[in-house]
Amino acid sequence: MPESRPTHAELTAFLAAEFPQSRCTLEELDEDGSVVVAHPVGEAELRPGGTVSVPVMMTLAEVALYIAILARIGIVPLAVTTNLSINFLRKPRADRRVVARCRLLKLGKALAVGEVAIYSEGEDEPVAHATGTYSIPRDR
Amino acid sequence: MPESRPTHAELTAFLAAEFPQSRCTLEELDEDGSVVVAHPVGEAELRPGGTVSVPVMMTLAEVALYIAILARIGIVPLAVTTNLSINFLRKPRADRRVVARCRLLKLGKALAVGEVAIYSEGEDEPVAHATGTYSIPRDR
Amino acid sequence: MPESRPTHAELTAFLAAEFPQSRCTLEELDEDGSVVVAHPVGEAELRPGGTVSVPVMMTLAEVALYIAILARIGIVPLAVTTNLSINFLRKPRADRRVVARCRLLKLGKALAVGEVAIYSEGEDEPVAHATGTYSIPRDR
Amino acid sequence: MPESRPTHAELTAFLAAEFPQSRCTLEELDEDGSVVVAHPVGEAELRPGGTVSVPVMMTLAEVALYIAILARIGIVPLAVTTNLSINFLRKPRADRRVVARCRLLKLGKALAVGEVAIYSEGEDEPVAHATGTYSIPRDR
Repeated sequence: MPESRPTHAELTAFLAAEFPQSRCTLEELDEDGSVVVAHPVGEAELRPGGTVSVPVMMTLAEVALYIAILARIGIVPLAVTTNLSINFLRKPRADRRVVARCRLLKLGKALAVGEVAIYSEGEDEPVAHATGTYSIPRDR
Repeated sequence: MPESRPTHAELTAFLAAEFPQSRCTLEELDEDGSVVVAHPVGEAELRPGGTVSVPVMMTLAEVALYIAILARIGIVPLAVTTNLSINFLRKPRADRRVVARCRLLKLGKALAVGEVAIYSEGEDEPVAHATGTYSIPRDR
Repeated sequence: MPESRPTHAELTAFLAAEFPQSRCTLEELDEDGSVVVAHPVGEAELRPGGTVSVPVMMTLAEVALYIAILARIGIVPLAVTTNLSINFLRKPRADRRVVARCRLLKLGKALAVGEVAIYSEGEDEPVAHATGTYSIPRDR
Repeated sequence: MPESRPTHAELTAFLAAEFPQSRCTLEELDEDGSVVVAHPVGEAELRPGGTVSVPVMMTLAEVALYIAILARIGIVPLAVTTNLSINFLRKPRADRRVVARCRLLKLGKALAVGEVAIYSEGEDEPVAHATGTYSIPRDR
């Protein structure tokens, strides 16, 4: 465990370096360890019919999980996603950002598991729900 | 069921229209219903450290499943992914395309379920394995 | 939707009829639609080493999801599990019941999706987390 | 890696010791590392309506995965299921055994991942398909 947890600014800088193609932004970093990450929605994120594309939703889930882990263990660039499972629940809105709230279910020495609820910004009902597992390198 | 199954060219045209941001290409359409879809790997697909990004892998899994379903039921643009679960197994190569082979496990009236094995082109061992469920519209 | 939701007693009677081998009991039926189901833990539920067996955990997750759906749509014996995914997080205690709290994420016409957190009774950290999908018969 | 792989008889003995409540039997142990495990189907395994219960299917998937791993790494009783995800595809027959064929997708130092196809004995189409992950203890 790190002596001090990374700050919002440190996590944002890491995000820019590690996911250069991603347009995710870190919105909240809560005391209880949950994090909120957002992704803009525009032409590039929409499929014909006006729904947000699956890869955008997966990116959001993956980044939210990664940031939630790093917020707890410190910035460890070698953590690797081993499993990601997502249920698509409702059609996201085409005119709002998508926002993911991630909560860790377990933070072990070798594995971290978290759940992510994804919303169209400002809506009450989730558009998707994901769970994911990260493998944490042993020698850090 | 359609009187005739869509051709390779029809599925490719559909792919371009329905997934305009995607760079996936349909490589094989087998008699037994399995399909092979590929995605190029270059700077835009790589994460620092030289691994293929998770969203690229998810896109490939999603598109392979969708094409495998359409190859059987005809072109139905309203089919919707309801669940996608992926296990990441090995680091993909940075200098090869990623190639997905999809096989349907079930094609029901309301739900289709398939599995997808993803490889770095030319390699024997899969880099990822996904299963996914599509909901098929009732009135088609 | 039924005119009136089933009562605790009606759901308990259904559970006994539909899952005759199961030893699950309905503990809570909350206003917000979440339910709590418990399973005793004794010799028959333990594996060597003192952990609760995987089938007990899966039964609990399945029953909790099923009851959460029936509590909302009325008693429909034909609903069918289509997908169940579980992450095992911590070793359950050998001397406590396991307790599952289920919350529905979506209740659509054709599909219901829920999440289930499983605890050793009285503990704060979940021992497992599941998500599941039920297919709801069209003509009910 | 062990000097010699466990035999069919050794794995059967382990199964009896480790899963004393289970009625699974090891049917095949193939050269390529895949294994076949079966479970009888009778009154105790059926739900009203004549379908095989979910816990029986999960037990079969879990045991098949575990045996497939042990067949490769030697008998290591401390391996732990970390994730199990199953899609139910068709109604199993009430008058046949259920049979699971498991193939490992990855056998790493810390994690093993496999897929399991489950059939009603003698049928061509799978009734369920599972993927699972086991965590392998570091010091073995």
